[in-house]
Amino acid sequence: MQDQTVTVPVETLRRFVRDVFVGVGTAPEDATICADVLLASDLHGIESHGVGRLKMYYDWIKKGIISPQVRFEVVREGPTTAVVDAHTSLGHPVAHRAMELAIAKAGAYGLGAVAVRNSSHYGIAGYYARMAAEAGMIGLSFTNARPSVAPTFGVEPMLGTNPIAFAAPSDEAFPFCFDAATSITQRGKIEVLAREGKPTPAGWVVDREGNLATDTAAILQGIPKELYALLPLGGAGEEMGGHKGYGLATMVEILCAGLSSGAFLWALSGMEKDGTPRPHRLAHFFLAVDVEHFVPLDEFRATVGGILRELRGAAKAPGQERIYTAGEKGHAREERIRAEGVPISPSLQAELRAIRDELGLDRDRLPF
Amino acid sequence: MQDQTVTVPVETLRRFVRDVFVGVGTAPEDATICADVLLASDLHGIESHGVGRLKMYYDWIKKGIISPQVRFEVVREGPTTAVVDAHTSLGHPVAHRAMELAIAKAGAYGLGAVAVRNSSHYGIAGYYARMAAEAGMIGLSFTNARPSVAPTFGVEPMLGTNPIAFAAPSDEAFPFCFDAATSITQRGKIEVLAREGKPTPAGWVVDREGNLATDTAAILQGIPKELYALLPLGGAGEEMGGHKGYGLATMVEILCAGLSSGAFLWALSGMEKDGTPRPHRLAHFFLAVDVEHFVPLDEFRATVGGILRELRGAAKAPGQERIYTAGEKGHAREERIRAEGVPISPSLQAELRAIRDELGLDRDRLPF
Repeated sequence: MQDQTVTVPVETLRRFVRDVFVGVGTAPEDATICADVLLASDLHGIESHGVGRLKMYYDWIKKGIISPQVRFEVVREGPTTAVVDAHTSLGHPVAHRAMELAIAKAGAYGLGAVAVRNSSHYGIAGYYARMAAEAGMIGLSFTNARPSVAPTFGVEPMLGTNPIAFAAPSDEAFPFCFDAATSITQRGKIEVLAREGKPTPAGWVVDREGNLATDTAAILQGIPKELYALLPLGGAGEEMGGHKGYGLATMVEILCAGLSSGAFLWALSGMEKDGTPRPHRLAHFFLAVDVEHFVPLDEFRATVGGILRELRGAAKAPGQERIYTAGEKGHAREERIRAEGVPISPSLQAELRAIRDELGLDRDRLPF
Repeated sequence: MQDQTVTVPVETLRRFVRDVFVGVGTAPEDATICADVLLASDLHGIESHGVGRLKMYYDWIKKGIISPQVRFEVVREGPTTAVVDAHTSLGHPVAHRAMELAIAKAGAYGLGAVAVRNSSHYGIAGYYARMAAEAGMIGLSFTNARPSVAPTFGVEPMLGTNPIAFAAPSDEAFPFCFDAATSITQRGKIEVLAREGKPTPAGWVVDREGNLATDTAAILQGIPKELYALLPLGGAGEEMGGHKGYGLATMVEILCAGLSSGAFLWALSGMEKDGTPRPHRLAHFFLAVDVEHFVPLDEFRATVGGILRELRGAAKAPGQERIYTAGEKGHAREERIRAEGVPISPSLQAELRAIRDELGLDRDRLPF
């Protein structure tokens, strides 16, 4: 028993996470993918989507909201396209297979796209975009999500945080990888503020009266009751471009739900009208663009690297030491975490121990 | 001679604009496209990219920065992909042909994408996205642009306003059409504030010291000297998500310049090191997604319409009467302008008269 944060080697955690999924009925090869996606989040510093989410998936599987056995039914397929029904199964292996399929099609024809319906949370969008980058392609990954974001001039949570992920190979040691919600922030970051006892920055969240809310505890209590909504990138109203974040979120909703004939907006709430939990039925969209069909891959890598280095070399604001490009911070973090291990807080240690004991896994599988 | 704004019938202006392009050496069918793109801007309320820009193109053609005869050299082509070198010719017909090619490929294979290098300003990005929507497809249109936007933590203009346009057919009378710069605003909107004698909202523009600039006249004078830069969507720093707008702008730069091996960032400034004007050498990227390869088009239209209507029905902030979806305001505006005509300010009247007289067009071609 520990009362402070412990760092755990990546491979120890990876085996544990995989065996938890195997323990609830997921096939070993699919459980391996789940573990890899969750660990990739921790490695890139996106703790809100990492091992800290294991209990969420575990609980949803126990409640029957997510099916642990993966179904991947290709309901329609063409040379460059496919539509998949995931039958409410675990999102990570579904998304992995969908992007593999898009990559194979792009390799043959130049472009490949797969739309998925009736899936569940797939973790970080960037993981699947990076799969394409590792294959010498551009990858894009989109998903809709539970309603939490208000449209411009609205105060009701309607859209999900609907991320856009884009990865491209460069001539550097790691790809350009942009992975961001189309809202300013997401609930996980407000939870971090709560743990730190800090107010929420004015502009992230709107209440039902249209005021910018900053009381972090009240926001977290009120979000499930729809008393608060996250604001789209660009913020409230149109002056700072809030309609642009709203439009991008709608674009993601159309790509995912439209091209898969999947569920959208309120239908993703995960609840029946009487509050009974039900599957979220998320939809995803994956696109792979094979660079070699356009230009030689080395030439592309050099162009991308040239863009990134020129951006980093821009004149800096006084007091700023560095300009980053997307993927840089995650790469630096990955090197550090591989050496030092993943920090696991006392509350997360307790969650993981409880899962271990419920599944009857050996006690020495966790070093705490 | 008029000293006030005059409204001119759309078709009168369309013929005039076409004949101006023909007058400087553009082929009639290409001049027709140029006129259609410029008028579409005015019809959709994006006056910054409409007939008000005719003189800019006219001057650039006279200076040799844009070649009025269109060259569209397909330097590489595959089943779903093509790379085009436009040899610094007029961007609108180049972009039109590129999107037509992407649409044809998508019709055959499900997806089609065309990257273009060495082009010039193509007007509103949404025009080309809408071409796909009119063909029952999703269309995406991207372009890089002259450096004007600072990266996060930077103060130097590096990226263009790099728009993302996305259009999708719905079951309503007009498509969903999102068309937005990845910066909060663009220079045209600051010019509007200058005419109205208003300050620039704090957050749109940063000066070299990293301060938010609001002196509209100083900003407009200082932008060409790189004393000011526009801020990415999300604003300065990372707290409100400025790194997301910056990341999206970089994504657009990579899609356009990377996949075409085209010019990027500072190379698009339109100036030699000694200040001599030179072609901007912009790069574009177009993607068409044929809906019928995924789901029946009517089903897709119904899904998109369902998303849009559900969004408009969200609870509104007090004092707000309406929630819009992208494309709605432009459609309403189009109906009004078709009935009433395009408003032409006295200064724009003078510009158009001067062009008419220089080209020796009949005086009665313009009703002022």
